[in-house]
Amino acid sequence: MLNYVHAIPTKVFFGEGQIRRLPEALAAFGKRVLLAYGGGSIKRIGLYDTIMALLHEGGFTVTELSGIEPNPRIESVAEGVRLCKDNDIDVILAVGGGSTIDCSKAIACGVFYEGDDLWQMIVTSGGFSKALPLVDVLTLSATGSEFDGGGVISNMKLNEKLGAGLTFPAVSICDPTYTFTVSPYQTAAGSADIMSHIFEGYFSREDDCELSDGIAETILKTVMKYTPIALQDPENYSARANLMSCSSVACSGIPEYGKEDTGWPCHAMEHELSAFYDITHGVGLAILTPRWMRFILKKDPTALPRFVRFAKNVFGLEGKDDQALAQEAIDRLEAYFRSTGIPMTLKELNIDEKHFEVMADHANRNDRLAHAFVPLTRDDVVEIYRTCL
Amino acid sequence: MLNYVHAIPTKVFFGEGQIRRLPEALAAFGKRVLLAYGGGSIKRIGLYDTIMALLHEGGFTVTELSGIEPNPRIESVAEGVRLCKDNDIDVILAVGGGSTIDCSKAIACGVFYEGDDLWQMIVTSGGFSKALPLVDVLTLSATGSEFDGGGVISNMKLNEKLGAGLTFPAVSICDPTYTFTVSPYQTAAGSADIMSHIFEGYFSREDDCELSDGIAETILKTVMKYTPIALQDPENYSARANLMSCSSVACSGIPEYGKEDTGWPCHAMEHELSAFYDITHGVGLAILTPRWMRFILKKDPTALPRFVRFAKNVFGLEGKDDQALAQEAIDRLEAYFRSTGIPMTLKELNIDEKHFEVMADHANRNDRLAHAFVPLTRDDVVEIYRTCL
Repeated sequence: MLNYVHAIPTKVFFGEGQIRRLPEALAAFGKRVLLAYGGGSIKRIGLYDTIMALLHEGGFTVTELSGIEPNPRIESVAEGVRLCKDNDIDVILAVGGGSTIDCSKAIACGVFYEGDDLWQMIVTSGGFSKALPLVDVLTLSATGSEFDGGGVISNMKLNEKLGAGLTFPAVSICDPTYTFTVSPYQTAAGSADIMSHIFEGYFSREDDCELSDGIAETILKTVMKYTPIALQDPENYSARANLMSCSSVACSGIPEYGKEDTGWPCHAMEHELSAFYDITHGVGLAILTPRWMRFILKKDPTALPRFVRFAKNVFGLEGKDDQALAQEAIDRLEAYFRSTGIPMTLKELNIDEKHFEVMADHANRNDRLAHAFVPLTRDDVVEIYRTCL
Repeated sequence: MLNYVHAIPTKVFFGEGQIRRLPEALAAFGKRVLLAYGGGSIKRIGLYDTIMALLHEGGFTVTELSGIEPNPRIESVAEGVRLCKDNDIDVILAVGGGSTIDCSKAIACGVFYEGDDLWQMIVTSGGFSKALPLVDVLTLSATGSEFDGGGVISNMKLNEKLGAGLTFPAVSICDPTYTFTVSPYQTAAGSADIMSHIFEGYFSREDDCELSDGIAETILKTVMKYTPIALQDPENYSARANLMSCSSVACSGIPEYGKEDTGWPCHAMEHELSAFYDITHGVGLAILTPRWMRFILKKDPTALPRFVRFAKNVFGLEGKDDQALAQEAIDRLEAYFRSTGIPMTLKELNIDEKHFEVMADHANRNDRLAHAFVPLTRDDVVEIYRTCL
């Protein structure tokens, strides 16, 4: 069990109706608000009107930044920074899923970025002295951005999508009813994203982290229990609430207490798929994960015990030889993803092998996958992409 | 699943050697430090010398408050408040277990208490406008005080021991090696305390909290796995580290996300044992818990499904009828506590029924146990105490 630091200053108001806390949460920082959001979904569900009414009653001045992309782009960050500076913004209010929150985190830091090129702030996770305060209202259970300090920003000109350490939300308002209208596709993709955040830490060499492993397994089982219920019955509060809690806790660092940095290989590989093809992050992860598992299990026999634990504790499998257990667990995981209705091959996304070589170079930049649970070379990454076709 | 608020501003530095972070953690608040600790254990293990050397090198001015009791008393709080005021203290450094940290929290708030009677601050959880910053170095895995905002203070003149909402540590330094020398008795008692923090929330009527229930079960299993190892092999780092992480997460509120307030019946009953007989908190909880379980299972048949879940998910029991499963789980829990070597009857602690009636009145003050998982009357409490004899 390795050393760790736990530091999450974010205050979470969880549950139906918590939006009533919004005016007080914002007022702690000032009256000039940048309202950041994505497409029209927050207008369709009435949340935009609810929030505007609360802000109006509370005497806030609102500047809007809309149209933040599903894979948020550096141009949106730049536009947000400009709006904050021009309007002397006190606090950013992000309303949406992880993309909107990530973009808002980058804007919050970008206001204090000292360099000329905002993209360098993302590349280096630095160059800013502080950040504007950020409050968010979550509308999608997926990235965990409501409870961590990171963000992922894309630069489509460079075909790059990078994660950076930015800033924590001061307050996250997490009302599961705002996810009642999330489409089956986005629900399933969001759940795959939550699960991937767990897999990235769970498959590690530190095998005496009983607390964090147990929490990781709990999250996997909870997501696989409630995703089908949410797909069947989109307004099932218990299902939506458990998924939303899982989203936050999965990214809290707690399921990784004591674990080594694995380089998050599936995220590294997926970010290239999104950077080149702008696909839904969670779908890319679902496609990659079982193929990555089969590849590393074949490449390194010492990975087997971890897969056996996964098979027993997550799927309740028993009684076979270890290799069979591991394979069955991976098969079950793939079958689970497929059962949620998302594409499970790259072909279905019209992706062919054209860019695999350069994507693999990017994914393994700075040899970051050399210290993964099973170290990966760029050739390994190409091979894993191929098995996803 | 009910609404909840998550708000833990505490930064935790976990693992061997994290004491090196101490000077920076303190310096953020100032140079005049109140060093609070209990008996001589921190001197025996060399931690006192380590800390004094770090403080000396860092140019800190140190005022000492030693001799904080295992059930910390209001007189120690008053003495600490006096020292803080007389020495213009900037930050409190608590070195010890939950008792020292709880006492330090009360001191931190007491400095800003506006009334005449500090005990009223504990009774009302209020009357203070802010708190001095608090940094702690944890030496016992038990109360979770390193990661929550509460404290328990005793008034032996009134035979009262009350929990109060006080202040969160700004920084907790959690180095499992500091628990290598904790006695078997205190190790076992501390583990029982951790488990009780889980039981108090786990036995609840909200049965759709899959995430929090799973985390609760994980903590119970982890504690029961590693306590015997720590007893057998006191310097086993994995065991001590898992127990220390469990201590913190158990009191983080996460294992109770979405649960109702149950009034924490075993804590309410145990606080009276400690208030009247000054016993070790965790031992009192271990004695009470299985008896409380048998009592409520008998009193209210609707409690059965929760016990069946407990039997299956924590002890891996299966295949019998539900009532037998529940009884076997409780028997196993009692056998586990007994196997850790602590007294499991009140007689062994020289406690008889003399004060049971008045203790029961106190435990159920303000009818707080009327909304427990299975509501308890004061007569029920007397009956539970009797079965502990």
